Amino acid sequence: MIKVAINGYGTIGKRVADAVSKQKDMQIVGVVKRTPDYVSRIAADKHKLYVSEESGLKAFEESGIKVHGTVGDLLDDCDIVVDSTPEGMGDKNKELYKKHHVKAIFQGGEKPTVGEASFNAYANFEEARGKEFVRVVSCNTTALMRSLFPIYSELGIRKVNVTLVRRGTDPNDHKKGPMNAIEPSFSFPSHHASDAKTIIRDLNIDSMALKVPTTLMHTHVVLLDLEKEASSNDVLDIWGRYNRIKLFNSKDGYKSTAQIMDFARELGRDRSDLFELAIWKDSAHVNSSTLSYIQAVHQESIVVPENVDAIRAMTSETGKEESIKMTDSTLGIA
Amino acid sequence: MIKVAINGYGTIGKRVADAVSKQKDMQIVGVVKRTPDYVSRIAADKHKLYVSEESGLKAFEESGIKVHGTVGDLLDDCDIVVDSTPEGMGDKNKELYKKHHVKAIFQGGEKPTVGEASFNAYANFEEARGKEFVRVVSCNTTALMRSLFPIYSELGIRKVNVTLVRRGTDPNDHKKGPMNAIEPSFSFPSHHASDAKTIIRDLNIDSMALKVPTTLMHTHVVLLDLEKEASSNDVLDIWGRYNRIKLFNSKDGYKSTAQIMDFARELGRDRSDLFELAIWKDSAHVNSSTLSYIQAVHQESIVVPENVDAIRAMTSETGKEESIKMTDSTLGIA
Repeated sequence: MIKVAINGYGTIGKRVADAVSKQKDMQIVGVVKRTPDYVSRIAADKHKLYVSEESGLKAFEESGIKVHGTVGDLLDDCDIVVDSTPEGMGDKNKELYKKHHVKAIFQGGEKPTVGEASFNAYANFEEARGKEFVRVVSCNTTALMRSLFPIYSELGIRKVNVTLVRRGTDPNDHKKGPMNAIEPSFSFPSHHASDAKTIIRDLNIDSMALKVPTTLMHTHVVLLDLEKEASSNDVLDIWGRYNRIKLFNSKDGYKSTAQIMDFARELGRDRSDLFELAIWKDSAHVNSSTLSYIQAVHQESIVVPENVDAIRAMTSETGKEESIKMTDSTLGIA
Repeated sequence: MIKVAINGYGTIGKRVADAVSKQKDMQIVGVVKRTPDYVSRIAADKHKLYVSEESGLKAFEESGIKVHGTVGDLLDDCDIVVDSTPEGMGDKNKELYKKHHVKAIFQGGEKPTVGEASFNAYANFEEARGKEFVRVVSCNTTALMRSLFPIYSELGIRKVNVTLVRRGTDPNDHKKGPMNAIEPSFSFPSHHASDAKTIIRDLNIDSMALKVPTTLMHTHVVLLDLEKEASSNDVLDIWGRYNRIKLFNSKDGYKSTAQIMDFARELGRDRSDLFELAIWKDSAHVNSSTLSYIQAVHQESIVVPENVDAIRAMTSETGKEESIKMTDSTLGIA
């Protein structure tokens, strides 16, 4: 049984905690929160709750939330910690994990150098094998790997240009924006291109990004030059063999991200999540050797299966295909 | 066993179908859809699917969706139909229900005259007893009844003024607005005041309404003059005795509708619904005899328990308290 701790019980942390709880070979030994808010109350009902050193026990005790100790106590009792603290805190936390001799998974908001490897289950599962520190790439990079890796490995890719139209913030946030503007990223390429290369090192990719006023999903407009000749149907057939890709047809009524997330709510999953990358099948066209398509990413949940697989790659001898199968069947990905 | 048909499998219809399926004394005999889209595919997986007369079988057969007949076939096989077709179609459908000698529940988008009674479980359960045609009031009026009826019956109400800040459209819609404007309603009072009086006939109420660019929830700002003297704690104690009201404290992090619907996603319910009326407890203040408070309404699901109770009131001898208890326990309302 792999003993897993979760440091940071936010959007990603709470989802990974529930996903890990569903694995036969893993157990959650505790989760860490900083603030005694409603999310902490929910966390304390479901898991053993620990607090970060800075926040201390007092604020939680005053709020009547049951706490089992501080993060240090938890780290002494686990095989691996999933760090899902706010962006940029991972590097600092890494010293703590080293001190407690515990393996750690970081999220895509951290710099690639935080881990010995960056991770995507389809593309480079074995690179995380036995490692101490691994970084699961961000939701956007995970999504790009999901659709690009199958094409890269079966047809070859000369060049990718992707435009990321990003959601402004998550649905549980009421402070961030943009609320009434479109906000381009002025670094070129946007960091997504270099992040993709931490997984497929020789990928020739550029990216540009904008934020728009929506909370449901990111979307990506992808243009890519294929090495081998292929039709759009060939590409759809390839994607169709991967469970973590779900193809949607606009003619069935999937006219926007609104209907895709409406579909997700019908799946009966916790929090109405969509772990699969959504690709509009009728957006896929091949013109000469250029493939274009549009995909949508449920930013809150797409990295959840990858975190589960990364745990197995780092702490067990379970093979890639077997781990993915175990993760998918427990999360209802068919 | 009460045999229930659902005519119209949209936002309300699909939720009522699932809620009815969870009742020991009811069964869904079939659901009716007009369009062979993705929602129809989901419906056909879960229920016996019938099509409306106008749409016909052909379009569905061409889409490969299994259909059991047209609405007329279904109406011959049920005790009661829940009409959740788009606003304004109920009156027309009523003739069909009469022809097939079947009882019917209509939704709040229909005129009050479509039913022999309008319905809210807490306020007037018995008025629907044995009736042929009943209208469950809209999400907004249901919400107003939830918070007003307990105060009306225990403290008395001299006068209510409510400002409804309404969501622009539902999360599964990508066409309606407003997207970047605040849209006042220019009828005074807005129709909500007269709708409230279909339930509590002598309620002295005025209402004004605006639409804003959000999809999560409606909110209501309520000002009311109490007949009996009471503190805000007295009012909170009264609301606390009703399971279909849930009190939220902003100090726990419930700063907006975003966090309230985030909480709902943690409940593990189908579609992440919040059947309960949400009231911010720290928004409740009494100044002299005037009580003010702010409440939030999950427009997609608040009427679901009321539809289930209306079915029992119309077709069985189950009492008000027993029906509410059965409905609440099956829907996870505690």
